[in-house]
Amino acid sequence: MIAEIICIGTELLMGQVVNTNATYIADNLSQLGVNAYFQTVVGDNVDRIEEAIKIAEKRSDLLIFSGGLGPTQDDVTKQTVANCLNEPLVLDQEALEQIETFFKKTNREMTESNKQQALTFLNGRSFQNKNGHAIGTWIEKGQNSYLLLPGPPKELKLMLEDSVYPFLEVRVGKNRDFIISKTLRFYGIGESTLVNRLNDLIEKQTNPTIAPYAGEHEVTLRITASGNGVEECEKMIKKVTDKIIDRVGDYYYGEGYNNSLVKVVGNLLRDNKKTISAAESLTGGLFQSQMVSIPKSGDFFVGGIVTYHTEIKYQVLGVPERVIKEYGVVSEECAISMAENCLKLFGTDIGISFTGVAGPEPLEGNEAGTVWIGLSFKNKDSVAYKYHFMHNREGNRQRTVMQGLDLLRRSLNNN
Amino acid sequence: MIAEIICIGTELLMGQVVNTNATYIADNLSQLGVNAYFQTVVGDNVDRIEEAIKIAEKRSDLLIFSGGLGPTQDDVTKQTVANCLNEPLVLDQEALEQIETFFKKTNREMTESNKQQALTFLNGRSFQNKNGHAIGTWIEKGQNSYLLLPGPPKELKLMLEDSVYPFLEVRVGKNRDFIISKTLRFYGIGESTLVNRLNDLIEKQTNPTIAPYAGEHEVTLRITASGNGVEECEKMIKKVTDKIIDRVGDYYYGEGYNNSLVKVVGNLLRDNKKTISAAESLTGGLFQSQMVSIPKSGDFFVGGIVTYHTEIKYQVLGVPERVIKEYGVVSEECAISMAENCLKLFGTDIGISFTGVAGPEPLEGNEAGTVWIGLSFKNKDSVAYKYHFMHNREGNRQRTVMQGLDLLRRSLNNN
Repeated sequence: MIAEIICIGTELLMGQVVNTNATYIADNLSQLGVNAYFQTVVGDNVDRIEEAIKIAEKRSDLLIFSGGLGPTQDDVTKQTVANCLNEPLVLDQEALEQIETFFKKTNREMTESNKQQALTFLNGRSFQNKNGHAIGTWIEKGQNSYLLLPGPPKELKLMLEDSVYPFLEVRVGKNRDFIISKTLRFYGIGESTLVNRLNDLIEKQTNPTIAPYAGEHEVTLRITASGNGVEECEKMIKKVTDKIIDRVGDYYYGEGYNNSLVKVVGNLLRDNKKTISAAESLTGGLFQSQMVSIPKSGDFFVGGIVTYHTEIKYQVLGVPERVIKEYGVVSEECAISMAENCLKLFGTDIGISFTGVAGPEPLEGNEAGTVWIGLSFKNKDSVAYKYHFMHNREGNRQRTVMQGLDLLRRSLNNN
Repeated sequence: MIAEIICIGTELLMGQVVNTNATYIADNLSQLGVNAYFQTVVGDNVDRIEEAIKIAEKRSDLLIFSGGLGPTQDDVTKQTVANCLNEPLVLDQEALEQIETFFKKTNREMTESNKQQALTFLNGRSFQNKNGHAIGTWIEKGQNSYLLLPGPPKELKLMLEDSVYPFLEVRVGKNRDFIISKTLRFYGIGESTLVNRLNDLIEKQTNPTIAPYAGEHEVTLRITASGNGVEECEKMIKKVTDKIIDRVGDYYYGEGYNNSLVKVVGNLLRDNKKTISAAESLTGGLFQSQMVSIPKSGDFFVGGIVTYHTEIKYQVLGVPERVIKEYGVVSEECAISMAENCLKLFGTDIGISFTGVAGPEPLEGNEAGTVWIGLSFKNKDSVAYKYHFMHNREGNRQRTVMQGLDLLRRSLNNN
């Protein structure tokens, strides 16, 4: 089966909104082993939507639409597809009741236009919308199938996970090629260097394929194998993965499409029963916020301080004024003292500190991007590392946090 | 002139990468007053790229490609377009020297495939790549123009800003319709409510148009006017904007595509010469990190504390143990005490506190999403506000920070 994604919305054509729906649908199709060769974006315009449909019908079996199902006058997707197919639309009672209940609850008056969000194909089937009002709908006609999904990402995402993906999985059938992907995540190595080290593997790749991707301050490799079953695919993936880890394992921190360095470090802290606190200057709480982003992070994260103004470093955190006078705030001594005082003040097993120059302006004669990261451990010598990052202000701050997480990952693994 | 964006990359079809290039190019086209009715995504496949070209040539004047200009075997865009047009490619000397210099500098061996990144149309023109190696190239043939741009966003973005946009501006010519857009930003009102309040304005919109968009925890309205000149457009925009502000001005916090609530609050603090510190529990440093994201934030942001574990609230911040024992950490009393102690500890004019339940688990009998935000001012009574948000853990934390920023915006405006 060949699918084509058609995203509808003038805001996409105007460049006001990033088209994350296409990415999300495409990723689901990949997981289903369904090939998609084209994506189209078209505005809220009947004639052009019809043109896109005619082109897609010729080259694809399954047309997946997103957007234009709302209550406003420029939401024309459902009506346009129905006209093209000459298929009647009817109100879905379950959806209609849900919309009516919502308007009752919120004491708002329901207009006729709200009803159109409950329209579905008489000869098709509906997918309820648990995050909004516009339902999804599916119909088959001739050689083609048509799937209409809502535009708001959180509505589309839940509907796909919840009911559409399982439905498609059955339609796609058992006889499909299985396609299994696994994402390997690396920090501290550039994409080109990583690709160079794996050049021969990547060049002679057929199945599994190795797709490198430069993410934000990290690189991922997506290994995709197709075969007759999950087990066969996973065997093929493991074989390649072992070769890759063997060559660049030093930079490999974990696997998984939704994994992240902070999750890996969080699990290491939890497994090692270590608590941590942080003293942040240029990162301004970004490290701690990432810690707290993990559910149940109280298991390992206690708290910390943001010492943005210099006097806070000695007045509140207790860094000796002498250290700052003598070495400055962007120094090994300051970083180590920050980490050690943080550990003491918050009574944790580990204290980590971040001090440096986010930019764009230099500080105390240090260029933007100059960063010291300090690590203090109970009953172990403190250390600090110097870095020079070359990003913009936000990039330097994010990169600094990633570097701190990687230092923690390495030291916890060596315990 | 009608443009069409064609993004090339199997990683886009596989859903591995979000197509930010299309958004960025589209936004530039809008600013140039160039209409774009379609966007296409196609894989690194010669036949399908040719198919996309043939379709686009019929309905658009200017075809803008991004991606597939790299050195690897699956980068086929330039060669495919050249074959379709039967136009020769030649090496651009400036680009070639730049590539050669790079490989010398990094002591790496330059392969033949690296050279192909310097290829340009003999009868066209080049755009140098200051963030990478693959140059952009432009050619006109018959009724159509073809612009090829690199895929890596940072390369594409700089090339567009730096040389392509000015080039297109001249090509588009003076006789073009001017299109000017202005984005109005709102917090604290839902998209549907906002649209309801402006229904008549939106329904009879022709020029300027009013495009609502639900962003992350905020809503924006993009007002777009087309006319014969900037001044004419801006007059039209102002007329509509005044009507809108008149109705929903209470939720309006600022204008600008790249503006944000934290920037607005930062400027208010700076203009009012007020300093601020924060005590964060569920937000875990997210508020402070947003403060620090602003260049020169030291003008108003001093520092703060993350009191994630309860004992930190009294041991380090100095919240009376009695308050927590009596009222719990998710309480008005705790929020106010946190804000007041924060103001004292960090010696600022304003202290803000965040305490509550990020979720997914409840806390002390409070549901996930229950949040108290405390505000303490020098020589002014402290206040705390209770909220109940309904997002996931990250959503609740982000929403809490937005709400805190809005409280600050309102209180600073009332000064």
